[in-house]
Amino acid sequence: MSHDNIFVKRLAAIVITVLALPAFGFATDDPLASWNDGANKQAIIDFVEAVTTEGSVDFVPVPERIATFDNDGTLWVEQPMYTQLAFAFDRVKALAANHPEWKTTQPFKAILDDDMATLAAAGEQGLMTIIGATHAGMSTDDFETIVSDWLTTATDPRFHKPYTALVYAPMLELMDYLRSNGFKTFIVSGGGIEFMRPWTEKVYGVPPEQVVGSSIVTEYIVTDGVPSLQRTAKIDFIDDKTGKPVGILSHIGRRPIAAFGNSDGDYQMLEWTSSATGKRLGMIVHHDDGVREYAYDRDSHFGKLDKGLDDAAAKGWHIISMKNDWATMFPH
Amino acid sequence: MSHDNIFVKRLAAIVITVLALPAFGFATDDPLASWNDGANKQAIIDFVEAVTTEGSVDFVPVPERIATFDNDGTLWVEQPMYTQLAFAFDRVKALAANHPEWKTTQPFKAILDDDMATLAAAGEQGLMTIIGATHAGMSTDDFETIVSDWLTTATDPRFHKPYTALVYAPMLELMDYLRSNGFKTFIVSGGGIEFMRPWTEKVYGVPPEQVVGSSIVTEYIVTDGVPSLQRTAKIDFIDDKTGKPVGILSHIGRRPIAAFGNSDGDYQMLEWTSSATGKRLGMIVHHDDGVREYAYDRDSHFGKLDKGLDDAAAKGWHIISMKNDWATMFPH
Repeated sequence: MSHDNIFVKRLAAIVITVLALPAFGFATDDPLASWNDGANKQAIIDFVEAVTTEGSVDFVPVPERIATFDNDGTLWVEQPMYTQLAFAFDRVKALAANHPEWKTTQPFKAILDDDMATLAAAGEQGLMTIIGATHAGMSTDDFETIVSDWLTTATDPRFHKPYTALVYAPMLELMDYLRSNGFKTFIVSGGGIEFMRPWTEKVYGVPPEQVVGSSIVTEYIVTDGVPSLQRTAKIDFIDDKTGKPVGILSHIGRRPIAAFGNSDGDYQMLEWTSSATGKRLGMIVHHDDGVREYAYDRDSHFGKLDKGLDDAAAKGWHIISMKNDWATMFPH
Repeated sequence: MSHDNIFVKRLAAIVITVLALPAFGFATDDPLASWNDGANKQAIIDFVEAVTTEGSVDFVPVPERIATFDNDGTLWVEQPMYTQLAFAFDRVKALAANHPEWKTTQPFKAILDDDMATLAAAGEQGLMTIIGATHAGMSTDDFETIVSDWLTTATDPRFHKPYTALVYAPMLELMDYLRSNGFKTFIVSGGGIEFMRPWTEKVYGVPPEQVVGSSIVTEYIVTDGVPSLQRTAKIDFIDDKTGKPVGILSHIGRRPIAAFGNSDGDYQMLEWTSSATGKRLGMIVHHDDGVREYAYDRDSHFGKLDKGLDDAAAKGWHIISMKNDWATMFPH
């Protein structure tokens, strides 16, 4: 070997070493850069390394790497009310001109008067009436357009941002990190499946076929030779609490190995995920940061977290402190 | 350049040419080798080239390349009866020892006596009773084991092969060909979703989360701290006829651009797929080969094809002749 060649080899070795460095800790290369170092971030990394290391006792083949995420309060803000409820109220106000009778009919009058106490008193029946008036009686294509249009103009009352901007940066990173390790990421939400599908691919990287949610009965109708799927005012499925494992079975057909939620509505999804044999990861996002977001748990109307807090330790679920675990809240 | 170098370059050019040859028509490289050359094979190739050629007016982005396949009679044999029905009958016979009353109770007696006339007379109510006795009252995990075990031992009465060997080679190739061109392939079948999921990944390359089918109501139960999904005897959803576009919406959330069926039960799936704007492919497998498989259409109890034959030309659907279009029937 000539001296020239030795020089080239040494240079190459130096270049390779320098290039390799970021993989050993440069912050810019951290796939979970929005997470503060600590037990929860480490638990995520340890879990992913365990299930992706071939030959490891915990190894899970790629097709079985299923991770499920609740949406409201887990991936995006759910206060001061669920975004889908804000959408329904805005729709009532937008449609009121065509319904003069709403000015004197409950629960519409309560919405038009911003009278939340009367609205709350209208209960489940009142909510169903609102869903019927705002979410049904049109084709799925038309509903998709209505949702998409609303999201481009509506803004959150506190942050004055579009709702799709109020998604949690650490959770976006977590989904990316899992996908880059062979996981399929699914949303499993109590929210309406067709309310989420128009935007989950763009915002979360989750395509429509990986969205599980509540649904209303839809009917296939052919009018003048043109088929459409028409949304009716009848509830088909509620994807909440014990409904979540059922929705997971129906849409995924496999038990997840990782699940992420934030409320007692996610309890059974976490339980179903973590009670199987093999390495499992269950995490609960705890809203304890009233400065950057909201602080609520056991007494909240939206996203109540009570039994989950009590049982997390015994179940092996990790409680994510938004205040302490998250360096960044939103992507903006 | 030395003569040596010129020689090496010429040799390289020859090697590259020879290596490249198979891509231009060697039979062994044909992704649809089980299909005879003809209008239908060409229609598949033309469609795939149109929707995958960037810049083409018909180009479809990868996430929207959704293809749906019926199962019974489209991907595997459905005569002399649906395989799932054969499974149910075998289960009745296997469970009969624990149910001495079945010897004198219909519709069980008819199955034990191989009395198909009496069984047919029992109608839908009789069928529901059989489903309740054979498909319900156990966990989804247990049902998966029962189905998997049955498929390893049960054989078809005519071909004396396992049912999962009686799948159509041309359709397996078609699914592979579509997937290699960026398509996601879904099964959309009137059959039970949990009856298909245990084997579709191995046999068709279709994972559980891409199987759409009929379902019974499943309940999430926790017993002594152990959760399970329990199958009840109540019908949840029938994925047939107008149910197919509804099932597609529920599970996929996008309209397919290609759909493949064989009976009038697939009519609305084909209609929903092909009536949208943009390039679409709709195909009907016509069972016209009584020698290698079965010949039936308008008068068949299983897989009746009547309206589909009448309307195919007007709807732009291709009728696949199993006799003429398929060089090979089964993979074995």
